Amino acid sequence: MGPAEPRSADADVTDLLSLATELVAIPSISHHEAALADRVEEVFAALAHLEVERIGDTVVARTHLDRARRVVLAGHLDTVPPSGAGGGPRVEGDTLWGLGAVDMKGGLAVLLDLAGTVAAPAMDVTYVLYACEEVERRHNALAHLATARPDLLAADVAVLGEPTGGVVEAGCQGTMRAVVSVGGRRAHTARPWTGVNAVHRLAGVLDVLSRYQPRPVVVDGCRYTEQLQAVAVEGGVAGNVVPDRASVTVNYRFAPGRHPSAAEEQLRDLFERSLDPDLGDRIEVVDSAPGAEPALGHPVIAALVAATGAPARAKVGWTDVATFGGIGVPATNFGPGDPLLAHTADEHVSRRELEYARDVLAAVLG
Amino acid sequence: MGPAEPRSADADVTDLLSLATELVAIPSISHHEAALADRVEEVFAALAHLEVERIGDTVVARTHLDRARRVVLAGHLDTVPPSGAGGGPRVEGDTLWGLGAVDMKGGLAVLLDLAGTVAAPAMDVTYVLYACEEVERRHNALAHLATARPDLLAADVAVLGEPTGGVVEAGCQGTMRAVVSVGGRRAHTARPWTGVNAVHRLAGVLDVLSRYQPRPVVVDGCRYTEQLQAVAVEGGVAGNVVPDRASVTVNYRFAPGRHPSAAEEQLRDLFERSLDPDLGDRIEVVDSAPGAEPALGHPVIAALVAATGAPARAKVGWTDVATFGGIGVPATNFGPGDPLLAHTADEHVSRRELEYARDVLAAVLG
Repeated sequence: MGPAEPRSADADVTDLLSLATELVAIPSISHHEAALADRVEEVFAALAHLEVERIGDTVVARTHLDRARRVVLAGHLDTVPPSGAGGGPRVEGDTLWGLGAVDMKGGLAVLLDLAGTVAAPAMDVTYVLYACEEVERRHNALAHLATARPDLLAADVAVLGEPTGGVVEAGCQGTMRAVVSVGGRRAHTARPWTGVNAVHRLAGVLDVLSRYQPRPVVVDGCRYTEQLQAVAVEGGVAGNVVPDRASVTVNYRFAPGRHPSAAEEQLRDLFERSLDPDLGDRIEVVDSAPGAEPALGHPVIAALVAATGAPARAKVGWTDVATFGGIGVPATNFGPGDPLLAHTADEHVSRRELEYARDVLAAVLG
Repeated sequence: MGPAEPRSADADVTDLLSLATELVAIPSISHHEAALADRVEEVFAALAHLEVERIGDTVVARTHLDRARRVVLAGHLDTVPPSGAGGGPRVEGDTLWGLGAVDMKGGLAVLLDLAGTVAAPAMDVTYVLYACEEVERRHNALAHLATARPDLLAADVAVLGEPTGGVVEAGCQGTMRAVVSVGGRRAHTARPWTGVNAVHRLAGVLDVLSRYQPRPVVVDGCRYTEQLQAVAVEGGVAGNVVPDRASVTVNYRFAPGRHPSAAEEQLRDLFERSLDPDLGDRIEVVDSAPGAEPALGHPVIAALVAATGAPARAKVGWTDVATFGGIGVPATNFGPGDPLLAHTADEHVSRRELEYARDVLAAVLG
């Protein structure tokens, strides 16, 4: 190799930026992960020390080294839909831009690299790369796996490679989607006084949203912040009809320790004064998932925090650490990329971030 | 006929309630008028004194009596979509309930009846029963006819059988639909402070709508009232994404005498303060149609007002009198049914209303 080859000093180390770029180049919007699952399966299948199983578009690869502990390293294959242009990869210098660069194909690249380079870890490792995390909970392939094949997820601890900016983001907040729907009475738009305009009545719902104060909650030294956001709005009958139904779908993020039923109660309290049951107003919870406690006392998670050299902070987004929590596996989030860039048109991750995340995880795996 | 037969005294007079019931039983939601047009064509074709032409789902039937004057009697075949259940006809006593009973199958029944019973009117008559009045202006079959076959609409005056409660409703207001669209910046819903929620920003748009004061305008002694109503709302990207675009479609009804371009200017003024062009907010007019002056000075319209025995009042809804206005034919609205029931789940019309409208029009036709 010539002197221009940047990574010539260590031929064993994968070019993580190239690998992440390759993964971004394979579109994998939720429900369309097959091509990416194919590629991931191919990479694992080439590694003799791993037993590979594919369930739908989810790929599981395990070492069988009879170690005292087993750790799951997991990540989702899917991305949200692109914001604006296609979202294909673009590399400038040592930075990769593109849909999923941060959430979470950078993390997937790190996992694939560890699978290839850490052939004899100090603990057994189960790699779980799965489908449909970015959509309604009922589609989540990790949750399906927890039900259908719990044997594949059996472990002492789990680390999700979600973007955390290279520090441990502990636990996760719960998430709930609810449709806040208001009624009205149809009329001709030239004689609106004979009806009640449901779209106009959404003002009360939007007012609750604008007055909502994010609630801070400290658990295990980590500060969570609850959030309430509209994610969709719809209504309308015809271009000359006062509409009799309109709705806002909200996404409520609630701190670990608040049970989903308590979160739903809170949501109903918040909107109660702006709704009129006599007009058919109602709230329907369509999707919810509990949060997860930080689990910072677990020795592997503690070792991970120590390896980063920085204190753990709260994960405010929902992640599948809650799914692991649900099956009794303590879990945490650690991966490359700035979480603030997730789901934005500005997603990008650097070679340095990818390599740092790999080095920390490699140190923990021993 | 036995004594229980209500209309046995005059066998020539159609049972208007039965005819209207038959028309309501033939669904004709906009763009799906073919079956009703078939039936109407069949009725006209059976009348020897009429020349019938069908253009798409529009049926035109004309007398050719070489009278000094020609009047168009017109009505639309289509209805809005049903509100709740199917909207099929239900007769209780002398009242017909069902989708289109008022707007405007009652009026169509009157026109079909006049065609059959007034074979030698004092003026030539052109019956025009047409498609797609209840949808965007660009679909309106009368407007298409005015362009493609102006010969079929040539007349001295026109009467539209829209529901007016049996009095003359003069002229009509203009109508305009515009999409008021607001922007934002996408973000993950757990970290909304990194984005701008476009759905939340709709609050400003809804505030303009709730503060809007209907503007009264008097023309030719008729009092019009301008109105501004939301008819649709939409927005949303995914269940965990702060949306970057949301819109409200509004329907603006403006008085005769206000040009559509002036109405658009007014609309832009109203929303200007609630919109931020830097965030991509914008207003797009998607559909507009001018109003029409009352034309109460025309002798046939004056005779019609006199025959009702009641002063004319303003038509606040848009009707195709404006289309006739656009081709230089003075026009007015007169038909059976309470216009306040149009586009509601409560549409109903009585035998008395139908017969009264027929009798008034028969008197004017001579």
